[in-house]
Amino acid sequence: MATTTIKAYGVTAATEDLKPLAIQRRAVEADDVKIDITYCGVCHSDIHTARDDWKGSTYPVVPGHEIIGRVTEVGNGVNNYKVGDLVGVGCMVDSCQTCSSCEQDLEQFCEKGATFTYNSPDKHNEGAQTYGGYATSVVVDEKFVLRIPENLDEAATAPLLCAGITTWSPLSHWKVKKGDKVGVIGLGGLGHMGVKFAHALGAHVVMITTSPEKGKDAKRLGADEVLVSKDADDMKKHQGSFDFILNTIPVGHEMDPYLGLLKIDATMVLVGAVEPLKPFHGGGLIGGRKRIAGSLIGGIKETQEMLDFCGKHNITSDIELIDMQDINTAFERVTANDVKYRFVIDMKSLK
Amino acid sequence: MATTTIKAYGVTAATEDLKPLAIQRRAVEADDVKIDITYCGVCHSDIHTARDDWKGSTYPVVPGHEIIGRVTEVGNGVNNYKVGDLVGVGCMVDSCQTCSSCEQDLEQFCEKGATFTYNSPDKHNEGAQTYGGYATSVVVDEKFVLRIPENLDEAATAPLLCAGITTWSPLSHWKVKKGDKVGVIGLGGLGHMGVKFAHALGAHVVMITTSPEKGKDAKRLGADEVLVSKDADDMKKHQGSFDFILNTIPVGHEMDPYLGLLKIDATMVLVGAVEPLKPFHGGGLIGGRKRIAGSLIGGIKETQEMLDFCGKHNITSDIELIDMQDINTAFERVTANDVKYRFVIDMKSLK
Repeated sequence: MATTTIKAYGVTAATEDLKPLAIQRRAVEADDVKIDITYCGVCHSDIHTARDDWKGSTYPVVPGHEIIGRVTEVGNGVNNYKVGDLVGVGCMVDSCQTCSSCEQDLEQFCEKGATFTYNSPDKHNEGAQTYGGYATSVVVDEKFVLRIPENLDEAATAPLLCAGITTWSPLSHWKVKKGDKVGVIGLGGLGHMGVKFAHALGAHVVMITTSPEKGKDAKRLGADEVLVSKDADDMKKHQGSFDFILNTIPVGHEMDPYLGLLKIDATMVLVGAVEPLKPFHGGGLIGGRKRIAGSLIGGIKETQEMLDFCGKHNITSDIELIDMQDINTAFERVTANDVKYRFVIDMKSLK
Repeated sequence: MATTTIKAYGVTAATEDLKPLAIQRRAVEADDVKIDITYCGVCHSDIHTARDDWKGSTYPVVPGHEIIGRVTEVGNGVNNYKVGDLVGVGCMVDSCQTCSSCEQDLEQFCEKGATFTYNSPDKHNEGAQTYGGYATSVVVDEKFVLRIPENLDEAATAPLLCAGITTWSPLSHWKVKKGDKVGVIGLGGLGHMGVKFAHALGAHVVMITTSPEKGKDAKRLGADEVLVSKDADDMKKHQGSFDFILNTIPVGHEMDPYLGLLKIDATMVLVGAVEPLKPFHGGGLIGGRKRIAGSLIGGIKETQEMLDFCGKHNITSDIELIDMQDINTAFERVTANDVKYRFVIDMKSLK
């Protein structure tokens, strides 16, 4: 199969810095869209995969699954996109399309295993793997291409493709609505999108944080109140009052204090902690028929719905724009939780 | 207020055996039903409260919240019961009737605090507390009295009032239906009712146990399959296949293996472990949008629905009938998990 060599950034071992790499992209097939990448967000998962924190990384790793760009070529079977369209690609580039999960538009749970945007076996190139958006272009089946509303700031839409859908999906799935009291725990890349979405949905949004200094920014982003979780009196005041809590904490943590905040029958959804959690007390769920659930990104249909909602409500991510060459510093700053709230790479810097 | 002295069994301190006690029951007020107790089930909570395992016990404690009996007197405002009716009383004898939980028929979550059948402050007798069903009679507001189907074995209906509703409520709330694959973890007082109910609802029931020797009895009770959770191959075979899991384990335990059994979007409900659970991996929920929920007994309306279902499907508990004087041995055997599957006290022995 004909391929094209393009410029990218990646790592060839877990302990290395990212550096320029030459990678191959496939020629455009019938259902494919070729995208000239203009911007790519920097997600914490990029770092975990580059550094093999979750094991299972195969090198070289080219991260990047918050891809924005313009269509430069389409296959002859493509129906929905044409050259020049502003499009996005998120965490997935393929799935089986026939299993029960795929039929329910839950490609992220494809029973055969979704093809993720990087570090996944590549169906189109046996023995090889997918490479992400830290690159000048990408070729993707149109079913996994999203339409980006033209009214939004282009660079700031990139994080919607992962941080956006990750926080939108649970709010949508659990039917958060106008007037609900919604807590968002953690104000990072995920949390700041959770606050924006919950606010736009008409909820009474409470930013729950260990850091009182984040309060001002949380209110700017749409929070109605700030609850400092280290303040026992404040926590007591909010006991049993939340309809829904979006928990974006990325590491193992105590859950009991947060379960106490939920109303009867209310749910706390974990979207960040892909880690062992600390023991919680069964009584915290039993005494109130409460729920802890998980949520993983979202399906393609739901991602498009989120993007359309963002277009309508003029929602994007708060970002810091960087050059590709600054990526190693950016990784360090993300690890140190020092970014408001998402780095986005200006891909002009790589061209 | 006029009271009547009656015979009961209880403890006057956490470390004591149960012994005969004389207690007071209030005179029948307008909304009250007086019940001659014929049978009373022995629940593990009785033991926890007698022994102050959960703290908060006030002595003397007279346990018993699986009460069956005949109406002997009714107040002049009672509409639904008459002398001679076969009735039951479960875990609650009162609630505020006006809060949001009570209005939703969830008296167990009354915002003012439900009055539990024993060891709860007694609204009718300031400064005193409620005494349970290890006694010859009880006086209860008719709103907390249940009608027992006459076609059922009277003694064997007693455990329906707690073990029954505790397992029925989550199956009903989470809408378990014909054809669902339902796991029941643990074959004790709760688990054996869970198996019977899930079977009667038309589910494909899998008894999940660490003890292969329980398999035969599980099948007699209605299980279609037995999954031995210590058998790694068997666990692997059932990965991702359950629509619902009812977890009756009464102590802290590992949840990761069970979360792996759930389908996408499926729920495991805890009804037993009012204890700190062991750490589970957040990925077990996130990677499949799964849920852990709790459930606590059930409301009065739901309890009556359960009893009516039992009448229709001829469901009762499997019991061992004992005399009141055998209660201390029964407590020891329950603690040792040596009962199939519920002790019920024949209250003739106390009269």
